[in-house]
Amino acid sequence: MEISREQFLQKLPEVEKAIKECDFMAIDTELSGLHRPPTSVRLYNMVDRYQEYKEATERFLIIQFGLCTFTWDEPSGRYTAKPFNFYIFPTSTTGQIQANRVFMTQAQAFDFLTKQGFDFNKWVYQGIPYLTIEEENEFVAAASKKMNDDMPDIPIDDKEVQFVNNARQKITDWINAEKTDEVDGVNITAKNAYQRRLIYQETRKFDGLTAIGMKGFIRVVKLSEKQALDRATEKKKRFEKDRDAAIGFRKVIDLISQSGKTIVGHNMLLDMCHLIGQFIQPLPETLAEFKALAHRLFPKMADTKYMCTAEPELSTFFGADTALESLAFETRKEQFKNPQIDMHSGFSRYLTEMAHEAGYDAYMTGFVYLKLVSYLYKTRSPDKYAAIEAQILAEQEVREREKEKQRQPKVDADGWEISDSEDDQAANESNWDLDEEEVYNYGSIRVDLENRHGSMDNIFSSIINKTALVRTAFDCFDFAGPEVISNQSNTILVKYSDGTAFDKATAEFLFSKHGKFIIEPNDTSSSFVVFENLRDNPLDIILDNKEFTVVPIAHYLEKFNKSLL
Amino acid sequence: MEISREQFLQKLPEVEKAIKECDFMAIDTELSGLHRPPTSVRLYNMVDRYQEYKEATERFLIIQFGLCTFTWDEPSGRYTAKPFNFYIFPTSTTGQIQANRVFMTQAQAFDFLTKQGFDFNKWVYQGIPYLTIEEENEFVAAASKKMNDDMPDIPIDDKEVQFVNNARQKITDWINAEKTDEVDGVNITAKNAYQRRLIYQETRKFDGLTAIGMKGFIRVVKLSEKQALDRATEKKKRFEKDRDAAIGFRKVIDLISQSGKTIVGHNMLLDMCHLIGQFIQPLPETLAEFKALAHRLFPKMADTKYMCTAEPELSTFFGADTALESLAFETRKEQFKNPQIDMHSGFSRYLTEMAHEAGYDAYMTGFVYLKLVSYLYKTRSPDKYAAIEAQILAEQEVREREKEKQRQPKVDADGWEISDSEDDQAANESNWDLDEEEVYNYGSIRVDLENRHGSMDNIFSSIINKTALVRTAFDCFDFAGPEVISNQSNTILVKYSDGTAFDKATAEFLFSKHGKFIIEPNDTSSSFVVFENLRDNPLDIILDNKEFTVVPIAHYLEKFNKSLL
Repeated sequence: MEISREQFLQKLPEVEKAIKECDFMAIDTELSGLHRPPTSVRLYNMVDRYQEYKEATERFLIIQFGLCTFTWDEPSGRYTAKPFNFYIFPTSTTGQIQANRVFMTQAQAFDFLTKQGFDFNKWVYQGIPYLTIEEENEFVAAASKKMNDDMPDIPIDDKEVQFVNNARQKITDWINAEKTDEVDGVNITAKNAYQRRLIYQETRKFDGLTAIGMKGFIRVVKLSEKQALDRATEKKKRFEKDRDAAIGFRKVIDLISQSGKTIVGHNMLLDMCHLIGQFIQPLPETLAEFKALAHRLFPKMADTKYMCTAEPELSTFFGADTALESLAFETRKEQFKNPQIDMHSGFSRYLTEMAHEAGYDAYMTGFVYLKLVSYLYKTRSPDKYAAIEAQILAEQEVREREKEKQRQPKVDADGWEISDSEDDQAANESNWDLDEEEVYNYGSIRVDLENRHGSMDNIFSSIINKTALVRTAFDCFDFAGPEVISNQSNTILVKYSDGTAFDKATAEFLFSKHGKFIIEPNDTSSSFVVFENLRDNPLDIILDNKEFTVVPIAHYLEKFNKSLL
Repeated sequence: MEISREQFLQKLPEVEKAIKECDFMAIDTELSGLHRPPTSVRLYNMVDRYQEYKEATERFLIIQFGLCTFTWDEPSGRYTAKPFNFYIFPTSTTGQIQANRVFMTQAQAFDFLTKQGFDFNKWVYQGIPYLTIEEENEFVAAASKKMNDDMPDIPIDDKEVQFVNNARQKITDWINAEKTDEVDGVNITAKNAYQRRLIYQETRKFDGLTAIGMKGFIRVVKLSEKQALDRATEKKKRFEKDRDAAIGFRKVIDLISQSGKTIVGHNMLLDMCHLIGQFIQPLPETLAEFKALAHRLFPKMADTKYMCTAEPELSTFFGADTALESLAFETRKEQFKNPQIDMHSGFSRYLTEMAHEAGYDAYMTGFVYLKLVSYLYKTRSPDKYAAIEAQILAEQEVREREKEKQRQPKVDADGWEISDSEDDQAANESNWDLDEEEVYNYGSIRVDLENRHGSMDNIFSSIINKTALVRTAFDCFDFAGPEVISNQSNTILVKYSDGTAFDKATAEFLFSKHGKFIIEPNDTSSSFVVFENLRDNPLDIILDNKEFTVVPIAHYLEKFNKSLL
């Protein structure tokens, strides 16, 4: 379902319903540009990588957002997907907002989008705007001031002194005349916003008068108590509508966050950076603050790309090609037939494939996620899985038999079918109505996404809140804690006494002869040194320096893993 | 005429013809954003203003360019307009160019463009790319290297060592077999650009072998001398086509510049900054360098907005509303009937109005320019103008009479019309053919744009190379020299002895009590101080400081103007 700027507030309840009812949801974004252009640098340390992503969120925009909810439908025994596609554009023409947003575009990113048929007119003409929380607060404060006529006076330009004097005279004349006449107000023509503002501020100086903006003029009136109250109520309503329109797409992000449900992405770190930076608040200075913020907002994340590289059963199956489209293709095969996933009948946009539209990519991501989790469960707990499968099949058989029974025509003693219309109707109303007829229970197995039976512990615990991340010392980015180093042939641990400065210069002095490297701090008395392309055997790296000791990574890990037991 | 990316090279000759034949041309641009957002600052000094514009050209892009040529058509006695509209997008998908352009967009600018129905899909999908001169040089250098197989070797990744060894073996096997076999080459499958590059560099190591890139593989062959020559020729042709496609829209700017003809704009300073900065070269550091560069590239410019504010006859007529659309509306009136301007028959796009499309705005600008110049001439030299008008009318009458004569049916001695078909045909072929019938000579007067008769001196000399400029000390920006201060009530001249530091701090100390101001240097011993909103009488500003003297601006100007005589 594609939701345009015009329909947004009207369709929001449908989005809200989908988020509230779902088991989990998947997201995807299209961006106006990626992070820095490719360089020859092969490895980044985590702090630099975060700075790069943070910078990207300050420059580039999410221009399309895909959200797909997945909900288990018990009667049909399958998941139902509701994919939403939103174009996002920071227009200033909605909700009286004065925001003046400037953003960057990478021509290559737009070139890429043309290959997917991206509609740039829909983006600019129909994209949904948004305010971050702070922008909303500013908007509300400014609007309240305006609503309560609490604006500071602005100076009157020399050119406008005569205009203001004339207006003041006109108001005074009317006040004096009013005592005898029955005229209920006076109109003052204003040519531009500046003149309008001047009239408002002059009117304030008269007790009990209200200035009402009309097209091309301002009407100055004396309102009764009831009129004033009605006007205040109407103003407040308009303000609330303006505010909602201005908050715009952030409302969807708020709903996702408030749900506390699992969010699935594919290679989702950059998506999450943009999502938070664009719609919630500018990204914090440090990586640690970012992790804390992201985890608080979205406590459960799962990354299908990370799963396919980190889980041995999956990496064996998929190999190096973990592109989303490849995973979606592979998981349509027989091994992944459970669970069944259908598009909700009201969401027909993606009945034909539309790869790289954010809504469709979100759908594919959630689809793949369900298949992967189920596959892992089946592989790791084949007995339990078989038992559930058998039970489901048995239940299904029972249901089928019951249905069959009811489907038998009722016959009278002589064997004639009873065609009494009342009976037919009763049957229609009970178990034999059209809806149920249409829903054929495939008997697919619900994935225990809440780990209610504890059976998914060995799956979720290793994937939750970890996302794919390449060209760093680590195999993943961990939203919920520090990343763990893996046994790589290009990595050593350097130990030193607490408080020793082990900075880039020191490291260069010690290790530059072995090639380019990055440093990742481990604890106060050790750091990892990860080489871009280490040709020497790491065991051969020995220092004739008493301050620093090299520990082979395998030795360190052995000890580290033992300490976890 | 709208010219898309696909048609660009094909339609370029038509653009070239229009530029070469025309009397002058007008331009207009649409931008992805304007300069800094509006502030409360009311005045800028010229150096700051230039820096602001320079910054804008580094951030924002021309996304649509309008060019309209105007050519006097003697037979019909009127000007013919050819308006071209180009969408401009720095795509990287044309001409093998690897440019990775990042640019900024101001959401408000796009909002503004939606009101004019701007087609953002045409912009991204069909916008014409471009290279600056320096980018072209880089492109040519890189392409030459590639063409001459003069690429530096790249290191072979550990992962690809086997791949390279296999390829080398395959080539060697084929060389050995070739002596006996008749196979003329060997195919090596390459999965990606990196593998392809490796095959090229391996092939180079074999004498007399050539690697030819095919879809999915590389073919390694031994070419005969003729084959090698053909291949080189073909490569060169392809390179030239790629280069032309990559230079793209700059070609049009080059043609405009090379023509040396007058370029007319409306409030054109920002347009010229973008045009030079985007298509020719980044804007130079200083204002003086910019003026020199712009003047060298485009020696004759005229600005319709400036004309309407600076020429008394025009400012009286048009008043404060110098918006392009207003001028176009006003100049359709009777007073401006000369000269007649028609759209060329091949350019039908703007037969209905399309205000704010760059091509149409360029047309309006040139239209207004012709009308204004002609109006000034008529007003300032009524006798000369009347004489030309009379002459034109007389000539027209003569032509009409001649035509009428030919239109008289030939009659024989008895008064019978000769209906000999041969005679009819002869008439058709001479003066009476359809083309001439359609062209009705309105007898409008050609504007002496080249000032051939010296009659336009008093018009062009005051407007040439000056453009409108607000919120500065001066009434205009002058491409060809220093701006001249005008007699404004908010301005004083401060004199000091040569070498005295008259900087912002000193000025603040002396003048801050009179309000906000800017400084414009005049010569080595004086500066103008221009107040934003001076309430005091400038004659009352007196300093009890021996180092600095205040000279009323009127006194200075009196002396200055005398010195010019």
